Amino acid sequence: MAAGRPEDGPAGEGTPGESTGWTTAEPAVRAAVLGTGAWGTTFAAIMADAGCSVRMWGRSPEVVGEIADHRRNSRNLAGVNLPQGITATTDLAAAVDGADVVVVALPSQSVRAVLAPLSGTLAERAVVVSLMKGVELGTHQRMSEVLAQALAVDPGRVAVVSGPNLAKEIAAHQPAGAVVAATRHDVAELVARACAAPYFRPYTHTDVVGVELGGALKNVIALAVGMAQGRGYGDNTKALIITRGLAETARLGAALGAEPGTFAGLAGMGDLVATCASPLSRNHTLGAHIGAGMGLEEALVATGGTAEGVKSCRSVLDLANAHGVDMPITQAVVAVLHEGWPVAEMTAALLARPLKHERA
Amino acid sequence: MAAGRPEDGPAGEGTPGESTGWTTAEPAVRAAVLGTGAWGTTFAAIMADAGCSVRMWGRSPEVVGEIADHRRNSRNLAGVNLPQGITATTDLAAAVDGADVVVVALPSQSVRAVLAPLSGTLAERAVVVSLMKGVELGTHQRMSEVLAQALAVDPGRVAVVSGPNLAKEIAAHQPAGAVVAATRHDVAELVARACAAPYFRPYTHTDVVGVELGGALKNVIALAVGMAQGRGYGDNTKALIITRGLAETARLGAALGAEPGTFAGLAGMGDLVATCASPLSRNHTLGAHIGAGMGLEEALVATGGTAEGVKSCRSVLDLANAHGVDMPITQAVVAVLHEGWPVAEMTAALLARPLKHERA
Repeated sequence: MAAGRPEDGPAGEGTPGESTGWTTAEPAVRAAVLGTGAWGTTFAAIMADAGCSVRMWGRSPEVVGEIADHRRNSRNLAGVNLPQGITATTDLAAAVDGADVVVVALPSQSVRAVLAPLSGTLAERAVVVSLMKGVELGTHQRMSEVLAQALAVDPGRVAVVSGPNLAKEIAAHQPAGAVVAATRHDVAELVARACAAPYFRPYTHTDVVGVELGGALKNVIALAVGMAQGRGYGDNTKALIITRGLAETARLGAALGAEPGTFAGLAGMGDLVATCASPLSRNHTLGAHIGAGMGLEEALVATGGTAEGVKSCRSVLDLANAHGVDMPITQAVVAVLHEGWPVAEMTAALLARPLKHERA
Repeated sequence: MAAGRPEDGPAGEGTPGESTGWTTAEPAVRAAVLGTGAWGTTFAAIMADAGCSVRMWGRSPEVVGEIADHRRNSRNLAGVNLPQGITATTDLAAAVDGADVVVVALPSQSVRAVLAPLSGTLAERAVVVSLMKGVELGTHQRMSEVLAQALAVDPGRVAVVSGPNLAKEIAAHQPAGAVVAATRHDVAELVARACAAPYFRPYTHTDVVGVELGGALKNVIALAVGMAQGRGYGDNTKALIITRGLAETARLGAALGAEPGTFAGLAGMGDLVATCASPLSRNHTLGAHIGAGMGLEEALVATGGTAEGVKSCRSVLDLANAHGVDMPITQAVVAVLHEGWPVAEMTAALLARPLKHERA
């Protein structure tokens, strides 16, 4: 399942493997991965295992040095030996020089500033891939929109990868899958071939809006599921909130131009189910503390940092109100977190709503 | 949220609460619940809490006697006090006499024989509700089809209730929801009103085929999820199989006339997520034994009985082949359980399939 080098690769670059410093002279896809966090590093390993020549970029000389010299990233992905075919640099411009695919795995609120120096410098035919979830504060842009704008590239050449992707499990080669979405299907296919490893199966999609919204909105639903678990409720209640949470997410998605069916896929339900099962999710954990009776400040301390859904639930609700979309679970999460509503009243209020058709 | 007595209630019956022996003379819905298993008993409690007058029927004089005299069912639902408004009888014809709604919660393979004596005796306007999941062996009929035929009632007056409904959690009044489907929306609404309790929220639907298939096919997917867990795989892999399992279930459903979106709802995804999270699911448990290396016979012994998906996976695959529907997970489950295929090869085979669009 080795990825073939795209025929429309960038012109005017040096001979692969020589002047550009790529690890192989074979006609493999040359991928730059920006960011050395757990998921960026894992995705670099996936691409190398799919046959790509991979160059990582990070700010930290220690992390980059360890990846380059020992193919390990003990700070962010301890215990994992990275495959051959991965190099690393702290020079951002050098990292993307000659790359067919530029994968971005940076903190969502700082990505625009970090990438600013690259604006307009990517080869015209390079494809950009977002591994990031969330919406930029202030602009309300999705990450693919931020990337297209920050890098000054055609939005049709920006793809997003999303799904149930807990980095440590995939780094251990447990079977996983994800959606690769781009408005141009050939772009999605190119990226899918470049990350199809024996333990990682990408599915293509063209609904970029739906795939990104699924990733961004799951944090709010994970908070609600956590609250129910914190109150001692079991698997039924959890399944009810997951299902109805996805239903309201899909309603908002449809209003914003997404295909409702996307939310039943890996980037919607798949990601949400994995998040709500994992003890590693901050949103889920913070929700559980709230459900058990803590106030928001206390829960934030207990969770050891913020959780993305705490801020984004307000933006989601604003968006829903602006589009006239009914999102009772999101509304309840906002009310409990930010308006002093007792979490004990949340369930009764949700269940007492007028009866209706499941898909209304 | 008390249920109003349907205006088109059966004519020619005795005065409520007097000659018919219903527990209340108020104009409440009169519901007969046939079956005293955990779910039938729980649903009777839900209906009583929704304001119905409920009469249960069971074969066992001990169980029926305890329900009638003490409103407890210690054999099948230990530790739960049933609400007022529930009576019980061992006389089948008396149980359904004058009932507005007849709820059936009997073993799926014997329901036809048990109900035979009632054929043609129900009031013309009575509504029949199936709480059962599965497909009748031999006829391949869904439970609503079996009920309409066995009772000789109009299929439009048969509703099905399905969702993430672990009886013990609901009996403990944990928040839950379900889908009530009937081809006639007014019938679905009547049943929904009759079971809308403070802790139980029904959603109406008209896609009876999709709701029933979701319940019947989940057992096969639960087996596959169990197998992955038995092999030591974590939350990503589980979420991948759940999501892709529902995708292939929806493909078969569409071929059989169901709406694909139904499988993203409570009777599809909701039920599957709860089943795969619960240690109580036989299919899930049996799959885990197989994944850990046991043979089928050994796993059946360890599970303490059969699991419905072991038989039904073959029927599902036959149906898929007959309709030209690709169901790779079901195919792998059949191959592992019945054709001696090593479970260790299952994952690699599933992941090595040609890349494709998520919704293809």
